[in-house]
Amino acid sequence: MRKKKLRSAAEKINDAAGNLIEVPKNFIKQIKPGKKKKKKSSMKLGMPPGSMIHIGEQKVEKVKITLAEYDAAEEETCEINSVEEIEPYTDTPKVTWVNVCGLHETDFLKQIGEKFNIHPLVLEDILNTETRPKIEITDDYIFIVLKLLNYNPEDKSVESEQVSLILGNTFVFSFLEKNDSIFNPLRERIINQASRVRKSGCDFLFYALMDIIVDNYYLVLEKTDDDIDYLDDSLINNSGQIQIKEIHSLKRRLIALRRNTWPLRELFSQLIREDSKLINETTEPFLRDLLDHTIHVTESIDSFRETANTLMETYLSLSSNKMNEVMKVLTIIATIFIPLTFIVGIYGMNFQHMPELEWEWAYYGVWAIMIAVAVVMLLFFRRKKWL
Amino acid sequence: MRKKKLRSAAEKINDAAGNLIEVPKNFIKQIKPGKKKKKKSSMKLGMPPGSMIHIGEQKVEKVKITLAEYDAAEEETCEINSVEEIEPYTDTPKVTWVNVCGLHETDFLKQIGEKFNIHPLVLEDILNTETRPKIEITDDYIFIVLKLLNYNPEDKSVESEQVSLILGNTFVFSFLEKNDSIFNPLRERIINQASRVRKSGCDFLFYALMDIIVDNYYLVLEKTDDDIDYLDDSLINNSGQIQIKEIHSLKRRLIALRRNTWPLRELFSQLIREDSKLINETTEPFLRDLLDHTIHVTESIDSFRETANTLMETYLSLSSNKMNEVMKVLTIIATIFIPLTFIVGIYGMNFQHMPELEWEWAYYGVWAIMIAVAVVMLLFFRRKKWL
Amino acid sequence: MRKKKLRSAAEKINDAAGNLIEVPKNFIKQIKPGKKKKKKSSMKLGMPPGSMIHIGEQKVEKVKITLAEYDAAEEETCEINSVEEIEPYTDTPKVTWVNVCGLHETDFLKQIGEKFNIHPLVLEDILNTETRPKIEITDDYIFIVLKLLNYNPEDKSVESEQVSLILGNTFVFSFLEKNDSIFNPLRERIINQASRVRKSGCDFLFYALMDIIVDNYYLVLEKTDDDIDYLDDSLINNSGQIQIKEIHSLKRRLIALRRNTWPLRELFSQLIREDSKLINETTEPFLRDLLDHTIHVTESIDSFRETANTLMETYLSLSSNKMNEVMKVLTIIATIFIPLTFIVGIYGMNFQHMPELEWEWAYYGVWAIMIAVAVVMLLFFRRKKWL
Amino acid sequence: MRKKKLRSAAEKINDAAGNLIEVPKNFIKQIKPGKKKKKKSSMKLGMPPGSMIHIGEQKVEKVKITLAEYDAAEEETCEINSVEEIEPYTDTPKVTWVNVCGLHETDFLKQIGEKFNIHPLVLEDILNTETRPKIEITDDYIFIVLKLLNYNPEDKSVESEQVSLILGNTFVFSFLEKNDSIFNPLRERIINQASRVRKSGCDFLFYALMDIIVDNYYLVLEKTDDDIDYLDDSLINNSGQIQIKEIHSLKRRLIALRRNTWPLRELFSQLIREDSKLINETTEPFLRDLLDHTIHVTESIDSFRETANTLMETYLSLSSNKMNEVMKVLTIIATIFIPLTFIVGIYGMNFQHMPELEWEWAYYGVWAIMIAVAVVMLLFFRRKKWL
Amino acid sequence: MRKKKLRSAAEKINDAAGNLIEVPKNFIKQIKPGKKKKKKSSMKLGMPPGSMIHIGEQKVEKVKITLAEYDAAEEETCEINSVEEIEPYTDTPKVTWVNVCGLHETDFLKQIGEKFNIHPLVLEDILNTETRPKIEITDDYIFIVLKLLNYNPEDKSVESEQVSLILGNTFVFSFLEKNDSIFNPLRERIINQASRVRKSGCDFLFYALMDIIVDNYYLVLEKTDDDIDYLDDSLINNSGQIQIKEIHSLKRRLIALRRNTWPLRELFSQLIREDSKLINETTEPFLRDLLDHTIHVTESIDSFRETANTLMETYLSLSSNKMNEVMKVLTIIATIFIPLTFIVGIYGMNFQHMPELEWEWAYYGVWAIMIAVAVVMLLFFRRKKWL
Repeated sequence: MRKKKLRSAAEKINDAAGNLIEVPKNFIKQIKPGKKKKKKSSMKLGMPPGSMIHIGEQKVEKVKITLAEYDAAEEETCEINSVEEIEPYTDTPKVTWVNVCGLHETDFLKQIGEKFNIHPLVLEDILNTETRPKIEITDDYIFIVLKLLNYNPEDKSVESEQVSLILGNTFVFSFLEKNDSIFNPLRERIINQASRVRKSGCDFLFYALMDIIVDNYYLVLEKTDDDIDYLDDSLINNSGQIQIKEIHSLKRRLIALRRNTWPLRELFSQLIREDSKLINETTEPFLRDLLDHTIHVTESIDSFRETANTLMETYLSLSSNKMNEVMKVLTIIATIFIPLTFIVGIYGMNFQHMPELEWEWAYYGVWAIMIAVAVVMLLFFRRKKWL
Repeated sequence: MRKKKLRSAAEKINDAAGNLIEVPKNFIKQIKPGKKKKKKSSMKLGMPPGSMIHIGEQKVEKVKITLAEYDAAEEETCEINSVEEIEPYTDTPKVTWVNVCGLHETDFLKQIGEKFNIHPLVLEDILNTETRPKIEITDDYIFIVLKLLNYNPEDKSVESEQVSLILGNTFVFSFLEKNDSIFNPLRERIINQASRVRKSGCDFLFYALMDIIVDNYYLVLEKTDDDIDYLDDSLINNSGQIQIKEIHSLKRRLIALRRNTWPLRELFSQLIREDSKLINETTEPFLRDLLDHTIHVTESIDSFRETANTLMETYLSLSSNKMNEVMKVLTIIATIFIPLTFIVGIYGMNFQHMPELEWEWAYYGVWAIMIAVAVVMLLFFRRKKWL
Repeated sequence: MRKKKLRSAAEKINDAAGNLIEVPKNFIKQIKPGKKKKKKSSMKLGMPPGSMIHIGEQKVEKVKITLAEYDAAEEETCEINSVEEIEPYTDTPKVTWVNVCGLHETDFLKQIGEKFNIHPLVLEDILNTETRPKIEITDDYIFIVLKLLNYNPEDKSVESEQVSLILGNTFVFSFLEKNDSIFNPLRERIINQASRVRKSGCDFLFYALMDIIVDNYYLVLEKTDDDIDYLDDSLINNSGQIQIKEIHSLKRRLIALRRNTWPLRELFSQLIREDSKLINETTEPFLRDLLDHTIHVTESIDSFRETANTLMETYLSLSSNKMNEVMKVLTIIATIFIPLTFIVGIYGMNFQHMPELEWEWAYYGVWAIMIAVAVVMLLFFRRKKWL
Repeated sequence: MRKKKLRSAAEKINDAAGNLIEVPKNFIKQIKPGKKKKKKSSMKLGMPPGSMIHIGEQKVEKVKITLAEYDAAEEETCEINSVEEIEPYTDTPKVTWVNVCGLHETDFLKQIGEKFNIHPLVLEDILNTETRPKIEITDDYIFIVLKLLNYNPEDKSVESEQVSLILGNTFVFSFLEKNDSIFNPLRERIINQASRVRKSGCDFLFYALMDIIVDNYYLVLEKTDDDIDYLDDSLINNSGQIQIKEIHSLKRRLIALRRNTWPLRELFSQLIREDSKLINETTEPFLRDLLDHTIHVTESIDSFRETANTLMETYLSLSSNKMNEVMKVLTIIATIFIPLTFIVGIYGMNFQHMPELEWEWAYYGVWAIMIAVAVVMLLFFRRKKWL
Repeated sequence: MRKKKLRSAAEKINDAAGNLIEVPKNFIKQIKPGKKKKKKSSMKLGMPPGSMIHIGEQKVEKVKITLAEYDAAEEETCEINSVEEIEPYTDTPKVTWVNVCGLHETDFLKQIGEKFNIHPLVLEDILNTETRPKIEITDDYIFIVLKLLNYNPEDKSVESEQVSLILGNTFVFSFLEKNDSIFNPLRERIINQASRVRKSGCDFLFYALMDIIVDNYYLVLEKTDDDIDYLDDSLINNSGQIQIKEIHSLKRRLIALRRNTWPLRELFSQLIREDSKLINETTEPFLRDLLDHTIHVTESIDSFRETANTLMETYLSLSSNKMNEVMKVLTIIATIFIPLTFIVGIYGMNFQHMPELEWEWAYYGVWAIMIAVAVVMLLFFRRKKWL
């Protein structure tokens, strides 16, 4: 029922398409130089809902749109420039996949929305690259927002990129910010006539796209696992100031990973539960497999978080042990020599009446006393187990 | 069923309106000078439920009431002074929006309650600016209490202001404490005949008001994110006593943010779930979008809280590292020179019988011994990796 | 169904009233001098269930029983001494409120139980002042146990006192340990013919009693909030040993507060959910309001707990900062003067052959060397940012 | 339905009783000397399920079996030696209670299992004294495993002992490891003809046994509370190394307590929910009371755990404060005297050309300088608030 | 319904078996030398779902396949080499158990999948030894993935090995990586004609296999418990640097244990809940027993985790106590002797005009002053409770 409502709502609202805001292009440029992309989300304050503004960095120079159409028999791929070029493909029963790389040209998206009857709020979510992973299931299409994670080996950071997918009856749309190449293996599978994707429908393509994104998480997990092992090893062997900052950045990275992957569990559960007629029943085991992988990913992240906490604790403890060691050395040296220095100080005094100064064996006696004091001290430290 | 009960209960109780307490105006003034607004909540101890007393600071001099009436064709805005002036507007099928800025005049609210059949407990909640965010859905109206958050850049504090909204069949009431200007962009959209708000009903206006408040949270989030980044940067580069207090105040701010935003998730879920006939089905996708934003906000706050904890831990760890460094320098200097000072002290003694004093090369021998001691010490420290 | 069972069970069991244990009065006195009231709960080990023994301190000298009967027209209040005096009042359709202050006379309660058909386990719970907040809903009565919290400003402690309420068809019983005066404002409202309580039934009185207790929590919350603000202020300005103990006692207090208030959420939810015929539907909005207040209270306590944790962490961090400061001063002074002292020690040696001693400018040369050493040290500290 | 399945399963499996393993008696003895009872659980590796081996220490020399039979009119108690002696009692409609103290004779249990149609897995659980608290509800019997907790005041440890209860139609079996005397008060109540237990059926006896065990938890809670108060008091007044170990053992004890009591909440809830026909409806309020007590116990344990955490934190903080204090004293003394010692060292040098040595007031001048230095230092410390 | 879908999906997909990827054998070898098995999971990036690649170390030289067939009357065991050899056994009504030890020969598995109609994703999960514990229930078979845990006493590490089980109508398949011997006790029970396993069907064999794996967890738990006790004992008696690393590795091990066992609770619950027709009702009590054991295991692990946290805290606290002790000794010695050394320094000065030097009793006077200073210091320390 909820789906029906959304649908009819979408129909009604798209008639009033006049309120899609035309943001002048130099306005976008004005924002781009700002390094921190977060700055932009507040730009929309006071704007009406459904306003189509691209939130986030413009990551590619030019928007690149590729279209692939196939069924078990035939396959065709081309690059396109306008929405009109798509239309002839979508009317056929073949699977049509339109991939849009680059999100800063809002006009194109606006036309897609009009042609394929997509709700303006969905379009707004595609453009806002800070959208939380989410799903919208209607009678006409399924819309899902995921985050593609890229591990940057240089500074060990993880960048997230938003991927939005729309599954319709005879088409799949995918919207990315930058990394178009992630889908290349899938493109090769589409060209290979023997592959399962060629024998299946739009829903399987939809699954295959999501599967690539989730599989990519494993890469990030493995790199993170390596980093943890490295920190663990170097913690057990030696410890320096550089480590604490690494543990700190590891923890921050894990917080970000968790935030991007945790919502997927609920998303995929909902996708399986809702039993949309757009999803063929042969695709369901694959979706359940996808859910299992996602649960695996989130559980791994949680384990990593606990491990990172343990690393931090152990680091602090080792650090405190080192201090202890330093203090012991200082205390042993100071405690032995300070009294001795006092003793030699006594006989450095210049009083005219100091009987000891004239005794013949006094000097040797003082040495004896000093050695005795040092020995007593050392025994005391041994009893304390400091030596 | 619960809604029906509340409605009939409201009807019955309003007949007994005599027990609304008339608080003399100088009584209010008596309280106002107290800086801490929290002090006042206990004022109501022993008073009957539904007692209308304004709890909280009086933030504006004069209550300002504005009324806007519009439909797709016409639009009218005016400032009003009494409940009687509202009446002619509410009987028309047009959307009527009454915005009340300033809550200290309880008389006005009392009359609103009587005219529009609002339950006294609802009125009490509007006046008590420490009410937790809440929702009440009845057959006649939907009542919601939200917190508007304002970031104060000077002391990096966040002030919360209570906003209460009532959605009726042909009217929307909004009650604020101070920041009337927050709704200005909406006012402009109402004036613009092409906007969606003009083509929609009261429920869309109700949504638009809530949307503005939730959108404002993003501003606070961004500022907080900036503060976290600043703390993070300055933590990694250098550390001073000023930081710990900043982390502390950040954590306190996040506790307050969480408390004000977390209940909204449940509130908006309930609003969508209850399927009130006051909410048109075309507005539902917008409410779900609002819920998504709220979930995003709360998840961001939780991430920030974790990050703040990590910052605190890292701060403590860096602090402990610094101490370690300091101790090492002290230990190295003291451990090298204390024994040497002892040695020179020996030959400063004034014994008459000290054979070494007369040896010709004794002085140079002592130097040799001292250099040897120092070198041994330095090698020891190198082995300990302190140098 | 569960209610019916309890009722019939109660009927059957009360016939067997012979097993109510008659605890001799001097037995009670024997226990009272023990300061720690907790000691007594184990007294019941091995006793049959339903044994009526007063667990807890005897807080008042004499049990004081007051009875109020009223309807919209008439009102009567009196002090009574035996169960027989109550009977004539309970048969009338008017609201009868019996308040019992002091719990050590078990005979009275036993008679109440027999007359009004109260389950022995309910009576046992009333007497055991360490009962957890709980609710029992039967066909004949609703039994609820709450904790009244009193803030003691002297030692900043919070004392809890058990209040048990029984709502019957035409009567409300309330049982307190000591603070009878808490209900005085309600008594005044009952006397005032215009008040809502006079126009409503037993259920509203029942609500009003619970409302007073929950309102009282706000007082405790405000005092606690003040204490937190005080600690927070004094933490940011200066720190002493007294603080840690105050934070500690704050945390212990919050643990106790949480324990006493948290169960109320479930209690009041159940009361609203179960839809007992003893509760009039006009009273339901008030109960929901009560639930809202309770949720507010518990959320505030949880926020306070987090704040207390943050205070503790900040305290520890500041403490560690201070230590750092102290160590730096020590290290700077020691590191500068220990080498200098060594140098002057060298020329305090009494060797006969020390060429420097005879040089004319040697003394000034030593001064030059020492100043150079000190300057180098100071530059080193500056580079380390210790100065 | 689940109950029926278990029942029929039990019937089928008991026919195949041949696979109960006959463990030779000297095998048991072989294990006993091992102090750590945990060692034994792995003994069962590779054995078939339902293998009857006693896991745990043999705590009593000889198994003691007592039987009590009663109804409202008559009562008889005797000690028995074989399963055959039980049979005549169980056929009567009277309540039959068989208490088995000591679990190392598996033969007896095996015969019980055969006679009363008990599932082999139930028998295995009775013998395995490391079973988690659990419940099995079938049509023929209810089986429950609880832990009896004994506080050992000498080393402040808590020992847990397993108690298994089986409620049948006309009988109750109870199996303990050692502390037979815990049920003595109940035995006295059974002898007393006026007691409720005599007037009630097997289910009430079953309840009474569980009630005694849960009541015993209060004793442990009180002792633990006393220990916490003691630690709290001694923490606020003075602190020594002995404390940290006590807090540590308190925390470990609380972890164990929680583990043994927490599952009971679910157990008793299930017992009430399942509505077995073995439980009379007059007994239900008592079971609910039992559940309330259990919830109270677990909530108290959780509070204690939080308090223990707070104690630990406060301990650490006080410890760090002490260190601070120590460091301050060291720093003050060293910082004042090290420069002064340097000054006197200067004039202890033996240079031939030191003009100051010959000045008449030089000695007094040096004193003046030294006093000035000391005063400046003291003022510096005062400004730093170290004095 | 979900089961039916999966079944039909499996049927359809297996027809398209052509897309099972033939990985050349030397490809597998290429990976094997890599020590870290985690490295391999990312190998599958971009491959189609259902790709059969063995992920993980190749732990045995040669795949060993054993087959056992039995009913109550007969029993036969043999080693087999190809899928064709299995076929004649599976058509009989007897129980057929095929155990595969070693997973690197994907061909065999592929043929199994084709013959017994197993979904390719199931086959993929069997080969991927990093699969999370999971269950798949279809009409034709139940598939479960468990982790076998082996405690390595040498380095106190726990290795996990994946065990996959498939329960069909007349067969059970088990797939292991290495430790074939774990099932030997079960093999002996199968040979013993009197055992329950011989009298029961496939489902009981399926249960027995899972029971062995879960029983094995107890061994790991006991070893871990011993390690905790050892750490606890050595913590209370003495403390060294080696401990922190042991606590650290204990915590990491517990995180891994938890991750491998926690999902089993949900798995076994689902197995009981789903009420598959492959599971006989006499086997259900055994499955519930298995679930109980699993809950016991996970609760024990959680307790261990808390204990490990407490150990860490106590370790840190003891460590800090030691530091305190060290600092006290240093402070006492330094604070007593530094002022005395200053005093003797004064009279070591060489001023010509120092009246004290000529006083006859000056030397003794200085001694008196120094002793007085030392005594005052000692009294001060006593008051501070440092001695």
